[in-house]
Formats: sequence, structure tokens, C-alpha cells
Amino acid sequence: MKRYEALADDIAHGIASGSLRPGERLPSVRETSASRGVSPSTVFQAYDLLEARGFVEARPRSGYFVRDRAGSQAEPALSHPIAREQEVEVSDLVFQVLGHARDRTLVPLGSAFPAASLFPLPKLALALGKAARQLDPWKTVEDLAPGSAALRRQVGLRYLAMGCHVDAQEIVVTNGAMEALNLCLEAVTRPGDLVAVESPTFYAALQALERRGLKAVEVATHPRTGVDVPSLAAVLGQHPVKACWLMPNFQNPLGSLMPDTAKHALIDLLAEHDVPLIEDDVYGELYFGTQKPRPAKAWDRKGLVLHCSSFSKTLAPGYRVGWTAAGRYAQSVARRKLMASLATSVPVQEGLAEYLQHGGYDRHLRQLRQALATQRQLVARAIARHFPEGTRVTQPEGGYFLWVELPDGVDALELHRLSLSQDVSLAPGHLFSADHRFANHVRINFGHPGDPRVEGAIKTVGTIARALARQPQDAASRRGTL
Amino acid sequence: MKRYEALADDIAHGIASGSLRPGERLPSVRETSASRGVSPSTVFQAYDLLEARGFVEARPRSGYFVRDRAGSQAEPALSHPIAREQEVEVSDLVFQVLGHARDRTLVPLGSAFPAASLFPLPKLALALGKAARQLDPWKTVEDLAPGSAALRRQVGLRYLAMGCHVDAQEIVVTNGAMEALNLCLEAVTRPGDLVAVESPTFYAALQALERRGLKAVEVATHPRTGVDVPSLAAVLGQHPVKACWLMPNFQNPLGSLMPDTAKHALIDLLAEHDVPLIEDDVYGELYFGTQKPRPAKAWDRKGLVLHCSSFSKTLAPGYRVGWTAAGRYAQSVARRKLMASLATSVPVQEGLAEYLQHGGYDRHLRQLRQALATQRQLVARAIARHFPEGTRVTQPEGGYFLWVELPDGVDALELHRLSLSQDVSLAPGHLFSADHRFANHVRINFGHPGDPRVEGAIKTVGTIARALARQPQDAASRRGTL
Repeated sequence: MKRYEALADDIAHGIASGSLRPGERLPSVRETSASRGVSPSTVFQAYDLLEARGFVEARPRSGYFVRDRAGSQAEPALSHPIAREQEVEVSDLVFQVLGHARDRTLVPLGSAFPAASLFPLPKLALALGKAARQLDPWKTVEDLAPGSAALRRQVGLRYLAMGCHVDAQEIVVTNGAMEALNLCLEAVTRPGDLVAVESPTFYAALQALERRGLKAVEVATHPRTGVDVPSLAAVLGQHPVKACWLMPNFQNPLGSLMPDTAKHALIDLLAEHDVPLIEDDVYGELYFGTQKPRPAKAWDRKGLVLHCSSFSKTLAPGYRVGWTAAGRYAQSVARRKLMASLATSVPVQEGLAEYLQHGGYDRHLRQLRQALATQRQLVARAIARHFPEGTRVTQPEGGYFLWVELPDGVDALELHRLSLSQDVSLAPGHLFSADHRFANHVRINFGHPGDPRVEGAIKTVGTIARALARQPQDAASRRGTL
Repeated sequence: MKRYEALADDIAHGIASGSLRPGERLPSVRETSASRGVSPSTVFQAYDLLEARGFVEARPRSGYFVRDRAGSQAEPALSHPIAREQEVEVSDLVFQVLGHARDRTLVPLGSAFPAASLFPLPKLALALGKAARQLDPWKTVEDLAPGSAALRRQVGLRYLAMGCHVDAQEIVVTNGAMEALNLCLEAVTRPGDLVAVESPTFYAALQALERRGLKAVEVATHPRTGVDVPSLAAVLGQHPVKACWLMPNFQNPLGSLMPDTAKHALIDLLAEHDVPLIEDDVYGELYFGTQKPRPAKAWDRKGLVLHCSSFSKTLAPGYRVGWTAAGRYAQSVARRKLMASLATSVPVQEGLAEYLQHGGYDRHLRQLRQALATQRQLVARAIARHFPEGTRVTQPEGGYFLWVELPDGVDALELHRLSLSQDVSLAPGHLFSADHRFANHVRINFGHPGDPRVEGAIKTVGTIARALARQPQDAASRRGTL
């Protein structure tokens, strides 16, 4: 860790612990330089980093101030879904809207992926080539599900480092987190069962439910603190929920992060009802704070949590390597993996194991987090500047999505259609709920720091949204032409 | 093609067309050398190759004779399954028996895989490394399902070369054939539906049916000519079959090859009933004859055939790249691929495309076919020598499995158990049927030409089988101790 990073972390701790309070002014650069015995430029870099991470804000000619987290731009409120059992049918809409993801002429505000340029692809290529050349042919049989021993060991070490007890034996390597999530869902449900999800929900979770013929019940979710555990308790009391599918860390699309106390309460609740949790944790490494948030699985003592993650968002997009630590369901998941696709590509598994051991994954992650945190500020500021009055935006502490609530009456599908005509993609809120609520919300991807078109694209979308906000009464009729 | 290969092909044509008849003696090496104007050593090599491919046999001090294909050792007969709708429950047995596949101390007669040493792994590693280093980051988004354009083009060219019209647009790249088959099954069935399969059936097909909650109806299948089309017609007339899952080329475990006329009749029958065919063709490239057998899809005019194959058995074991050309179901399969696992590893797709274009795939395949054909003779001879009287063995024209029918009363699970204690694995016949018939059959893998232990292992299994054949009345009681 560099000197300015250490200094920034130290100050962030002070803010988190309350010794520096919202609105308070940080010591001047000169004061801090003297008191800490570091150069002024180190202090400048540290303050910049703190600003990028959202801890402080610079006020012209006044210095840096600890940010009020409920700051100037309002956040969306806790969602209030109707707790009813719903058939799921979202796929057609999802495919229709997201088919644009591959068009590289579009500014990818609607994309599900961060920019591939953020990742150490050349270094990965070397690790992959080396592993492939040195591949013991026997591994093509040995690395079938549950997967490469070397890779599972590396993944196990990372659980250990975050204080989460996971037996390497319960890890099953998969073709990305998507396969892990599907196999876990298969292991804990039968067609027709009911699954509790957040509101809004990641659309791929809804698609997975639809694919398996499951019903969904949506649970109130706060844009900053995640699923509301008392609401979930009420749902579990009233409905025959067979499993939960949740994202406690940097939920897609909210970016919400459940506090540790809430995670603990969640696990206690599920243990009481003996309901398994499919924990989708693909964004957990992309935190902007000082410490990696632990998964809910860290509190699990009954083997009820099937923790799923991958390297697709943090290291190796397109390599398609994920895993699940599936607790008491590990053998069932491993068998389903054998039946579904036999194995994950063996040279790729070995190549990632090689990179994790020697490639500097944590150094890369630090750079990635900083790039995303900085870009979040840039995109959030652009939205504040260009979007219509009354817009609410989340302030996520990790990941690369903003969830934007537009004034009532602005139809997100209409906004999506008009933005596309200006070469900008968006993910309309309709995708994120079984009953297509969130019609005036959009998810905006801020994971493309290198793309110079982003700020202009935000302005374009904002201009269209302002126009729509002025004539909401026409939305329904225009929608008919989509 | 080398000179001796051309000569061997020419003679094989003569045999196939009937101008050289079973039992007839080939001209001596000296005669052929003179008449063809090639060296004696070229003739020797050609005759050796013909022997390896099973067209001729060498008789000591007499020369080479055209082989009587219904020769000295009898083949198993057409199967006679009871055409009833069955729930499928084979997985526990399959996992129990095949868990041994990874133990490298065992002689792998029960393995589903050929020896990894048969494949050009170093050359593949170079192609993979090169593709990964040159990877356009955008491809990590672009190569999502349906898959890499470069790889789909290469696969499309191979269809074209075998005279099979496939639009590159209908090709979906998958994580091995196993994922392709599962996604195709999902595209054409709903849980509870009935699927027609061969008898015996590849156990992974039964597992896929079980996983999706489907019922099976087994159809009479001939060990040389594959599924019996009249029997299938009767089944389609009497049962609400929603799909067929068949292996027209070198069926696992029979090694049967449907003649072109039968494939044509099959496709006509299915067109008449509008029933889709999931065609598992992973062994089609491993033919010992002179010409690649076409898939049944070559006769399909209605888009009813979902043709599935992979590189796992022919080029790149462990790379986990397969595909389907899914006809009218292509879009449905591509969407299911997106939902199931999003994409197949992008550098691996690009690496295989690179190898296919420049690596010499067809040269490798020629060597592979010859190695397997030679080994088939060696293993078949060892079985003839060591197995009990009354044993019947298939004479497959491709692939790497022999299907061995032991005398009545020899229990294959017992044989499997006793062989394991002697460090030899076997695939007992019980695995290959929903009702666990074929109790006196075993599948023997001859795909390990380099393994010096194979001949001794066959002798070991034969000795145990002889002992069991002498005391069949005890089989039932011994089985209780398994």
C-alpha cells in the first residue's frame, strides 16, 4: 500500500468511528503534512482519494469537509413491494433491452459489465499460456467438478483472509457465477417453489427463477442498507418460502450494503426457519471503503448459505470462472455441475490459480476500486447537474451501478428508447421486478472510467429525461409505439 | 494424405463395394507393389492400416484376408426393451460407479474419456496463449452466447466440408457437448414430458432426463446399425413422445453406426410426427472407415434436428468447448445459454478458432483415428482370448468403446467390484438403462493405446468373469454384499 493510501485509510477510519464528524473541516494540507510528517503532495493525493471514495467533499476556497452521507442529492427510499407470490416472466423484455450490450458504438450506461480495459488481461494471458503449456494431461480428468484443487485452495485462502470459515471441500468451481447461482437454485428448490428476492432484484435472478418455473416474493429493500430483515421475517411467517436469493454486498441494481448487524440478524432468521440463502456476492471485492465487507455466510453456522462469486467482475471478464461455497449442499451442487457441464475449462482454472498465486491480485484490486470510486463521483455529479429536478440517486459504497429514480411519470422504457436513438444504452427499471414496477427508474453503469463519451451521454439522457418530465401525461400513449 | 493411406482407402473401397469379398485373400505384397507401382513398404503399411481398421486380418504364413465382419466372435443382438414410459433414477449409481474415474492408479477400462496423451495439448496451449495475448477486450462482451464469431465460422466450415448445410447463425457455442445437450433438452421439453432414447443409452442422457424430471421410453437398438427405425415408429405411434435423444454415429456404449438410409428414414419419420431430434454426435470424427459419417441432421429439412458435438473427444479434452447447431430452436437455445452460464470462456473459444484455422486438426484426427483403430483390434483380441465362452463383443467402426455381453448370470456390478479390487475399472451395463437391464454387460474403453497395463487388465477381468460364469447361481446372494 502506498503512503497516501495508508493516510487516506487512517482518516477514513476516523470518519467511520465518529472522531471526525459530518460537516467538519479536515486539517489543511499544510497542517496535516506537518503533523504526519509526510509531503504536501502525499496529503493532496490522500484527500483526493477520500473525495473519490465519497468520504469528504472539496469546497472551493474552503478546504475539505467530511461529507454528510445523506448529502445534497436525495437517495431513493425503502422499496414497498406487495408481498405476494408471483409467476415470473421477464426474459423477453430482458433480451429485448439487453441485446444492445454488444454494440460497441453505444455508450454502455445500460451495460451489466465494467470496461474490460480495467483488467490485467495481458498478465492473465501469460498465466493462462503458462498453465496450459505445463498442464498435466491427467488434470483434464482430475479437474472435473468440483474443480481444480489448486484453484479451490486459492479461493479458500481468500475466504480465510476475510475471516470467513469455508472448507475447501465445499467449493465447487463453475462457469462463472451465473452457473453457480443456477446450480444452487436447482439444489434447493423444485419447480413451483417460492423464492424470496430483493425489491428491486437483479434481472438475471428473475430469469433464473423463470427458467426453473419458480415463483418470486419480493421483499422491501433499502437503497443503502439492503434487504429489510423485519420485512423478510414477515414474509417468511406468511409464505412457504423455500429459499432466499439475496445480494448483501453492493446489490445489483441498488448498490446497497447490509451492515454486519443486519447480516447477522438475517442469518439468525434463516436458521430459525431452516431456509437456505443463495448469496450472490460478485461485487464484494469492489468496496470503496477501507475494509472488505464480509459475506452473510461469515455468520452461518448451519451450512445454510450457498455463497456464489466469480472473477468476472474483479479480474478476468470473459474467462467464465466462478464458484460456490455451498455449505451443506456442496455435494448436491457438485453433482449437478457434473450433469450440467461436467467441468469448467481446465487450463483456465489452472491459469487463474497461477495468477492468484503470483500475479498480484490484491494490487490490481486496489487500483480497480480506486478507478471505480473516482468514476462514481464523476457520474453522480454529472447526473446531479443534468437530470431533472426531483431525481434521486443512490450513493453506493461499492460496485459500479447507480440506481436513479426519476420524477413520477417519466417512463424508463421511453427514456431507454430515446437514449438508444442517441447511441446511449440504459437499463430501464422495468427489468428489475417481476411485476415491472420501478417504471420511473434506470440503472446506470459507472464502470467505464476510460470512456470519454460518458459525461456527454449522461447529459444527453438528462436532457431527454427533462423533456419527458415536462410532459408525463403523454407517456402512456408514446409507450404504445415502442 | 500419404501414399499408403490412399492405397488402403482404395482397397477398403473395393471391400465395401463387394469387389473383394469376405474370406478372399489380398494379393501378396510383391504383387501389389508391382501392380500399383509403389514400394513394398508402402504396401505393408497399407495392409497394416487395413488390419487396424478391421477390414482384413493377417493369417500367419498365409497373407492378408478380407475379414468376415460377422467373424469368429459373435456380436450382441438387437436389444428388446419394453416400450413403456419410465421415471428415470440412475444418478446415484452413476456417481457411485464413476467416482473411480479420477483415480490414476486404476487401469481405466471403465473411463468415459480417451487418454489425454492422444491430443496435441502443447500445440493447443500455444494457440490458447496466443489468442489470450491478442484478445480484443471487447470480445469479452461480444463473445457471449451464441459465441465467438471466429469459432462459429470454423465449426460452420466443417459442417460444409461434410456436406451438411448449417447456417453459422444456428450454432451456439457451449461448455462442452454436455451443456449443449442439456440446453437443447430444455428447449424442446417441459418437466414430465416423454423422451425416446436408445437401448442401451448413454447414462449421461438418462441423468439429463432425470435432472429435468422427464420420462424415458427406450427403443430397440442394433449393436451395429443403431436405433431400429421401425421400432421407433411404433413407439411414436403409441406414446406422446416430445423429443428423441439419439447417437446415430458410434453410439455410446454400442459403437453402432446408422447407415445413411436409416438416418434418412429416421428424419422422415420425425418430420412426419414433428418430433425434434437431439443428435449427440461427439464421436462422429472418430471413424475407422474411409469416410466421415454424416450426421442425421444432413437429411433434416425442417430444422427439427439439434445437432450437438464438441472438441472434448477429438482435440481438446478439458477445454470444455462444445456446440449445438440447433435448427429452428437456435434462438431458444442461445437464450438458455445466456441464462445458464452467459458464455463459454472467451480466450478458449478464440484459442480453438486459432488452432482450427492453423493447427492441423485433420492431420491430428487421422493419427488419432489410426491409434484408436489399432487399439480396438488389440483389446478385442485380448477379450476373445481371456473372456469366458459365450461372450459377445461389438465390432464398432469408430469411437473407443466395446460393448461386451457376458454369459447369462455373470453380474456386471459384481465383476466391477472384483475388478476394482484388482485396480481395474469397468462401466457395468446397469448404468445404461432406466430399468438397469444389461446386468450381464460391461462397456470397455479402448481409448488408451499408450497404457501398457491394458492387456493385463483385460486378462484380469476375463479371469474374474470366467470364475463368475462358472458359479452364476450365487450371483444374487453375492450382490447383496456390494
